[in-house]
Amino acid sequence: MYRTHNCGELRQNNVNKEVTLSGWIQKIRNLGAMTFIDLRDRYGVTQLFFNKDTNPELQAEAEKLGREFVVQIKGKVIERSNKNSKMPTGDIEISVSNINILSKSEIPPFTIEDDTDGGEEIRLKYRYLDLRRAKVQKGIILRNKMAQEIRKYLLNKDFLEIETPFLIKSTPEGARDFVVPSRMSEGKFYALPQSPQVFKQLLMIGGYDKYFQLTKCFRDEDFRSDRQPEFTQIDCEMSFVERDDILNLFEGLAKHMFKEIKNIEFNEPFVRIAYDDAMNTYGSDRPDLRFDMRISNLTETVKGNNFNVFDGAKFIGGICAEGLSGYSRKQTDKLIKWVQRPQIGAKGLVFAKYNEDGTFKSSVDKFYSQEDLKKWADAMNAKAGDLMLLMSGEKNKTLLALGELRLEMGNRLELRNDNNFAPLWIVDFPLFEKDEETGQMHAVHHPFTSPKNDQFHLIDTNPEDIKAEAYDLVVNGNEIGGGSIRIHDTELQEKMFKILGFTEDEAKEQFGFLMNAFKYGAPPHGGVAFGFDRWVALFNGSESIRDVIAFPKNNAGRDIMIDAPSSIDNEQLKDLNLAVVKTKK
Amino acid sequence: MYRTHNCGELRQNNVNKEVTLSGWIQKIRNLGAMTFIDLRDRYGVTQLFFNKDTNPELQAEAEKLGREFVVQIKGKVIERSNKNSKMPTGDIEISVSNINILSKSEIPPFTIEDDTDGGEEIRLKYRYLDLRRAKVQKGIILRNKMAQEIRKYLLNKDFLEIETPFLIKSTPEGARDFVVPSRMSEGKFYALPQSPQVFKQLLMIGGYDKYFQLTKCFRDEDFRSDRQPEFTQIDCEMSFVERDDILNLFEGLAKHMFKEIKNIEFNEPFVRIAYDDAMNTYGSDRPDLRFDMRISNLTETVKGNNFNVFDGAKFIGGICAEGLSGYSRKQTDKLIKWVQRPQIGAKGLVFAKYNEDGTFKSSVDKFYSQEDLKKWADAMNAKAGDLMLLMSGEKNKTLLALGELRLEMGNRLELRNDNNFAPLWIVDFPLFEKDEETGQMHAVHHPFTSPKNDQFHLIDTNPEDIKAEAYDLVVNGNEIGGGSIRIHDTELQEKMFKILGFTEDEAKEQFGFLMNAFKYGAPPHGGVAFGFDRWVALFNGSESIRDVIAFPKNNAGRDIMIDAPSSIDNEQLKDLNLAVVKTKK
Repeated sequence: MYRTHNCGELRQNNVNKEVTLSGWIQKIRNLGAMTFIDLRDRYGVTQLFFNKDTNPELQAEAEKLGREFVVQIKGKVIERSNKNSKMPTGDIEISVSNINILSKSEIPPFTIEDDTDGGEEIRLKYRYLDLRRAKVQKGIILRNKMAQEIRKYLLNKDFLEIETPFLIKSTPEGARDFVVPSRMSEGKFYALPQSPQVFKQLLMIGGYDKYFQLTKCFRDEDFRSDRQPEFTQIDCEMSFVERDDILNLFEGLAKHMFKEIKNIEFNEPFVRIAYDDAMNTYGSDRPDLRFDMRISNLTETVKGNNFNVFDGAKFIGGICAEGLSGYSRKQTDKLIKWVQRPQIGAKGLVFAKYNEDGTFKSSVDKFYSQEDLKKWADAMNAKAGDLMLLMSGEKNKTLLALGELRLEMGNRLELRNDNNFAPLWIVDFPLFEKDEETGQMHAVHHPFTSPKNDQFHLIDTNPEDIKAEAYDLVVNGNEIGGGSIRIHDTELQEKMFKILGFTEDEAKEQFGFLMNAFKYGAPPHGGVAFGFDRWVALFNGSESIRDVIAFPKNNAGRDIMIDAPSSIDNEQLKDLNLAVVKTKK
Repeated sequence: MYRTHNCGELRQNNVNKEVTLSGWIQKIRNLGAMTFIDLRDRYGVTQLFFNKDTNPELQAEAEKLGREFVVQIKGKVIERSNKNSKMPTGDIEISVSNINILSKSEIPPFTIEDDTDGGEEIRLKYRYLDLRRAKVQKGIILRNKMAQEIRKYLLNKDFLEIETPFLIKSTPEGARDFVVPSRMSEGKFYALPQSPQVFKQLLMIGGYDKYFQLTKCFRDEDFRSDRQPEFTQIDCEMSFVERDDILNLFEGLAKHMFKEIKNIEFNEPFVRIAYDDAMNTYGSDRPDLRFDMRISNLTETVKGNNFNVFDGAKFIGGICAEGLSGYSRKQTDKLIKWVQRPQIGAKGLVFAKYNEDGTFKSSVDKFYSQEDLKKWADAMNAKAGDLMLLMSGEKNKTLLALGELRLEMGNRLELRNDNNFAPLWIVDFPLFEKDEETGQMHAVHHPFTSPKNDQFHLIDTNPEDIKAEAYDLVVNGNEIGGGSIRIHDTELQEKMFKILGFTEDEAKEQFGFLMNAFKYGAPPHGGVAFGFDRWVALFNGSESIRDVIAFPKNNAGRDIMIDAPSSIDNEQLKDLNLAVVKTKK
């Protein structure tokens, strides 16, 4: 037996007990007559004690140990003279009588501490060592706890966890599919699922009523700062439901998670904001509601003073940064540069300070009198001491830029605290968006999303005006999940495919089995999918989802620990009837 | 709101309640003045009642409905005059006041009944309809329940469920890897995991102590009768454990499952049989212990009577089929043919009947007297009325053939009842097996398996004699799971790779990161993996694992519902820098 206890459980009431512990050596302190060693495992750290007077040979042995050695020790639990209230085991230590080295360690390439000296690249290469750090372990353990709490809630609501296949068929969004050549069927490929969408709909048609699954999904795209080629989705679907049945049930899930994981109780319903309102008010379809700072539409208020920029603009909007009227010229200049960066892409920024003494000072004083500026302030609910920030241009673009500026000002005013959470639903998304270049319609959510009931009639005449029964759960500016009521009618689905530019043959080739399934009694149904990695990262206070994935890939989609992707040998390629074609570059 | 209740929950005490139900139409019975409809959902079936006298229009409407239509009905719960005690809702029916057709259905290609008229091929093509059958639903629901009970047990034992990656690196057993071309890294491939073996070992090195995961694994091989290219594994690993720690903990899991799922309590420890003993006694490393019928080694007993077949054989073994001395010539002839089939491949079969009157009658009476045959009977513990069956030849081959014959006789004697369960552990597997043609050593379990402690010394001299710390959990002739204590020492691991024929470069290329990880303090560790599909099938009484997989592939590895694998377009191939090479056939 390697241990009688783990390294996190011994307490005062175990004093005098003979114990065996196993673990990693975290730290060795040699004080001459005494040596102390911190022994670590997943459960905690226990202090080992060696005394030169009583056992000089053993102390000498202890001094030869190194960091990250794995040892088994036997000894007696004794009360510490110098207790450490910060450690759960801080009342005791082990007076060691025997050491057994289970496994030696070379000096690790970085320190196994919360504040490690290793950069991300080396930590990914030695991920198995990075995983030992308490900070990383906390995220992985949280992830497990969250997965189980999600299951607990959904199982309790009669959901069934059902596995859907990984080796499926490439779909029209195929460009992002990972494909898997089949050895048995020459020249044929499976594809890895970008989501189990079609299968969960088939499960509803199959009568399973309530389905969920925590499952991996795959997308082969240029990995942006915080995407992974494989990611985990909490995938859910229900039959015989309307939109609010779904929102209520999954709002319940979110509340359950806030309560169980963060010990935060939301007693009120989550705010529900229509997509158009969110865009107009916050310049975002995933607004951070930890702070207010709404966008005011000033188009009517500020026009007509011969300021060409505004007079020629389709839209003028502003936000009010509370208490920042003291911003210096240097600070406002910097802010102008900030909005002109390509990520925001604004031409400029007009500001007006509402000074503490009630006067105004703006960057457009040439065109606007004190009275004019007072009107701005009234329109924006600004008060003395505030800084008004205005942008103008094409409406949608300006709103998005103001939305970004709003987040930046929120950061500067420290209104975006990691420990506050502001969940909300965005509803009534548009059903389609038009490709500005080609005029082709795309599904905003996906091709199976149902229009809102009262808007079916627009499908032949004004499809771009149709709102969808689609919704997103947003927390602190992050889209945590989203979903929709699905179409369950063959005719409507066929119409959708047509608007989306599928020929009849393409629709049949890609979704024939689903269209076919609709012919045999499809229940009304809808669902939602949550980005599990993102949700865990949010609750863990992590910047990146990589922090809460045991073996993440880097930003180029590579696993640099195992060195994948990599070449395969020619024999294997031949078996698959494939050849690698060199492109000219 | 689509429903106030589901179709399985209304009872006597709901009588007079106004309810709304939604579901599928299972059956319509038109009795002229009255019409009865069975409305079905996942939760059950409720009878709907229509009366010509009170509402002739509605009855006429009801008669127009068809099987598998999805409808919403409103009505009042009434007490049935003719109760059906076989249905949980059999005390009541709904006097319907309103019908709303949610979705029509064409006539399904097969009947949605337990005894369906559809063959497997058509049922796989329309799997979403097959999934509606109560029999199939039972398996899928059982699967969910088992997954959650497994989680419950392991979480309660401090295991963490941790996700390991799907896009990994092709390994030396690469021939069976599914590979995934990377669009971003020209000519490079990921591979799908055949198991998370390496990652779970890295998690132990990372200090996670107890890991499990229910996860998909992938193997691209010729699919035998009951294999799937993707399958689900219950993957587990523990640190600081010896073999018996693992056996005890997972025996606990198996007992928990038997209790919770089958309501069977095993109060005694499972039998543990060494591999060699299992082979000698049952001719199998996964013996069915629902019945005894051991193999007797008769080599010494039967030699020396001038019967050339026996005298020239290296090994002679026999089993005793209780009470079958009455077998006719025709029956024994058939049995001889049975063992001569290529699946068994035996040359022949000697039998001796121990007649009820105490006399013997054998197929080799020319060579063996009644006294001789009495000796056989004594050696085999046969008694009057039994049939003795003997085979001879090379030892291992003969044992395997006797093992198959034993199972067949068990079937004939009805000793293999689906509702009896006989779990056991097979331990002490050989570490290596030698390829008879090339002489190359292969790992019986996998290259990370540790030799038994007391056998390390044989590694340089007699590797083929070494027993491994490897074990299988066997139930009713099925291997449900297996595992081993792993090597945690770099030197020993390097030696293993060498014996297994890896060059140093190959070992480094394939497992460098794991070998490297061992250098930084690897704890002693070991684990087990269970075949979840197989286990569910066993508990469900299913012949095939396909019965307990929501969307299985057929025996050729095809999903015939979605038509995968399939061709992908040239644009996509070009994107992947790949070309399909036509083979000459």
